[in-house]
Amino acid sequence: MNIVELIRKKREGGSLSEEEFRFLITGYIQGEIPDYQMSAFLMACYFRGMGCEETLNFTRLMLHSGEKVDLSEIPGIKVDKHSTGGVGDKVSLILAPIVAACGVPVPMISGRGLGHTGGTLDKLESIPGFRTNLTISEYKRAIRDIRIVMIGQTKEIAPADKKIYALRDVTATVECIPLIAGSIMSKKLAEGIDALVLDVKTGRGSFMQTLDRSIELAKTLVDIGNGFGKVTIGFITNMNQPLGVAIGNWLEVVEAVECLRGEIGQNDASADLMEVTYTLSGAMIYLGKKAKSIEDGIEKCRRSIADGSAYRKLLDLVRVQGGTVETIENLENYPLSKFSIEIKAADNGFIREIDALELGMTSILLGAGRQKIDEAIDPKAGIVLKKKAGDPVSAGDPLAIIYTDREDVLSTSRERISKAFKVSPAKPNHKPMVLNIIDKNGVRKWQ
Amino acid sequence: MNIVELIRKKREGGSLSEEEFRFLITGYIQGEIPDYQMSAFLMACYFRGMGCEETLNFTRLMLHSGEKVDLSEIPGIKVDKHSTGGVGDKVSLILAPIVAACGVPVPMISGRGLGHTGGTLDKLESIPGFRTNLTISEYKRAIRDIRIVMIGQTKEIAPADKKIYALRDVTATVECIPLIAGSIMSKKLAEGIDALVLDVKTGRGSFMQTLDRSIELAKTLVDIGNGFGKVTIGFITNMNQPLGVAIGNWLEVVEAVECLRGEIGQNDASADLMEVTYTLSGAMIYLGKKAKSIEDGIEKCRRSIADGSAYRKLLDLVRVQGGTVETIENLENYPLSKFSIEIKAADNGFIREIDALELGMTSILLGAGRQKIDEAIDPKAGIVLKKKAGDPVSAGDPLAIIYTDREDVLSTSRERISKAFKVSPAKPNHKPMVLNIIDKNGVRKWQ
Repeated sequence: MNIVELIRKKREGGSLSEEEFRFLITGYIQGEIPDYQMSAFLMACYFRGMGCEETLNFTRLMLHSGEKVDLSEIPGIKVDKHSTGGVGDKVSLILAPIVAACGVPVPMISGRGLGHTGGTLDKLESIPGFRTNLTISEYKRAIRDIRIVMIGQTKEIAPADKKIYALRDVTATVECIPLIAGSIMSKKLAEGIDALVLDVKTGRGSFMQTLDRSIELAKTLVDIGNGFGKVTIGFITNMNQPLGVAIGNWLEVVEAVECLRGEIGQNDASADLMEVTYTLSGAMIYLGKKAKSIEDGIEKCRRSIADGSAYRKLLDLVRVQGGTVETIENLENYPLSKFSIEIKAADNGFIREIDALELGMTSILLGAGRQKIDEAIDPKAGIVLKKKAGDPVSAGDPLAIIYTDREDVLSTSRERISKAFKVSPAKPNHKPMVLNIIDKNGVRKWQ
Repeated sequence: MNIVELIRKKREGGSLSEEEFRFLITGYIQGEIPDYQMSAFLMACYFRGMGCEETLNFTRLMLHSGEKVDLSEIPGIKVDKHSTGGVGDKVSLILAPIVAACGVPVPMISGRGLGHTGGTLDKLESIPGFRTNLTISEYKRAIRDIRIVMIGQTKEIAPADKKIYALRDVTATVECIPLIAGSIMSKKLAEGIDALVLDVKTGRGSFMQTLDRSIELAKTLVDIGNGFGKVTIGFITNMNQPLGVAIGNWLEVVEAVECLRGEIGQNDASADLMEVTYTLSGAMIYLGKKAKSIEDGIEKCRRSIADGSAYRKLLDLVRVQGGTVETIENLENYPLSKFSIEIKAADNGFIREIDALELGMTSILLGAGRQKIDEAIDPKAGIVLKKKAGDPVSAGDPLAIIYTDREDVLSTSRERISKAFKVSPAKPNHKPMVLNIIDKNGVRKWQ
């Protein structure tokens, strides 16, 4: 087999066989195929795409480049959730304890924040002592003992994906649906799950800015999951404004804890966050066969909040992974940022929209995120929204509070956040958070 | 400026500015931009192409990456010819002496053979002692003294092209018209020419297998040449059978010498070769202002053969570049291949076509060409055709003779050559060799 011929084949719109993908991916991780040939191949994939069979084979080879955790000895149907990433998306922190509290084991491997979107690992690590780098045997023990575990990608999992992702990042080949889908699914399938729920974001704060592209990605992900014999359901959810009120690592933990304690009701600023969380959690409980339907699952979620079992599950998780439970029990004792500045409204009317991408980018300035993978982050830094889309507003009302230790970014951040809130005289229509559901039968509107 | 953004811009179909190309190409030859980013960019160019302005800027930056020979102190309009490469294409060996004999200086920088097409340098080096690696000052002296010089690309000329071409070769990004055109023209413009004639081959033995693609390439080349202020004319010529009768380095020198001596008339097997040679030479003499029209130039070419001045010019060339003139004067003294085998016709009828690609590939087997740039070649090896398209044939007639030192390839070669000759019962229509002429006014049929 000849790598130049394989690049040419893809360039001409041909389909690679499983054997050809094996040659490509094995050769690449063994260093026999250099980066410059892989990047030309990836760019050809950007233009030509991949067929169903190809995407399955690509994913399989990436999966088989590393270890696949075997959780078959642990009872129960193991279900995970994956989100394509958004701004203020702390759903995993609330959802995993809920689902585990409802009896379904949740083995979750998450990523770090990059660019404008946050990462679950960074949020968890804002809890003093919390370890995300468990060994595979610690990972299995946690799932067996408390039905919940949240760790980072280990070097054993899909090393081909790690190497290919790093290359895509520097060769403008990230935005390609089969490559994105193969990257996500090769990692998820390595976790040892039995079923999967996907949260594919759409809108300005997401990586897929049009609904069509989001649905296409969701379909590809669902097809791969089902192709590997794992029941997979995808949801398209709105990312036209940040989810909930907090953006920034510890700030998001606080919001998640308050939601789990039931301190935030359905009609306040975290309502959109809980709408997404309940839908995804309900589906997971249904796939884990602890509910008769997604709707029944959602009902069970609400009860796990009301009876305190979901919150207790979070405390279990923090304890088992080495975090200080006291920090969670006494949120007010956490260190404060040097600066906390209120951003005030200039106009009267209603909040029409809040530019999630812009707030995500501003949160990096404040210290809450990173532009490069090895940058340090400030867990305290970020933004808390005081208004959400649809809220009435009068000039002088607080729109948001920014938290940072960096004096030099204050004026720029203030200006960018002010501009990110769009005010209009008329009250905008309420937009549903969950737009579509995608399963092996196709795409349907959600409720 | 950010290289990932430039790759993305091209990927999305945008146009790069001159400054952006400077960043890209300077960064690449200085090693600041790695191969893997350049190859992703080249693949994006494959899909998105380049506009006129972009192709000019790309060519200019490649040209300026190295030295540009200054021939302005040498009198006369310096004219070169470039061919996109074919099988049996020894036109340069005949054309350059003709044009120089007619008073037009011909500074020619040629390449080596690669894949199924031969290279002028390899042909010249089959003449004992012939040096193609002259210094720039030897190059200038030859042009001044005898109006003709034929050398290889020096490392001073367009080093960016050299590096980018090597990368294209291993990343399946060769077949892209603006990249091909920029590569050709950056080298030609570095020679110090005032005008240029292009021979763009079309058909099965060429790199551009359809007429449309050949015309598109010719147009791009002509636009670049004229964009740099060098009058440029392109011709589309037929490469559906090998040109003339010989394929292989020394064998082609023999055919060229016989043509220059006038030993081969217009109605024999080298007629197609001379039709192309006269047209291109006539155009060069016209551009060099030694003829009133291309037709007048062609007439002068015929006279330079008839009066022996073109043949004497070849002898001058060989002498000045260190070759043994006796070898040319006594062709029959050249060493012989161990094996010379006649391939005989199996059927009666007419030769419909001769697969030039297949004969080119077979000549590599025999030792006349190379698959990798550093392979040695056997100057004696090759094929001499005994029939050409349109000729009547009877079973048992010789179709071709193969020359090789390699016993192990005899039976395969015999079989491949037999199959390459297609025989049909009816006499096929005569096909013209020169199809189109392309200049700054556009594309026209040739005669």
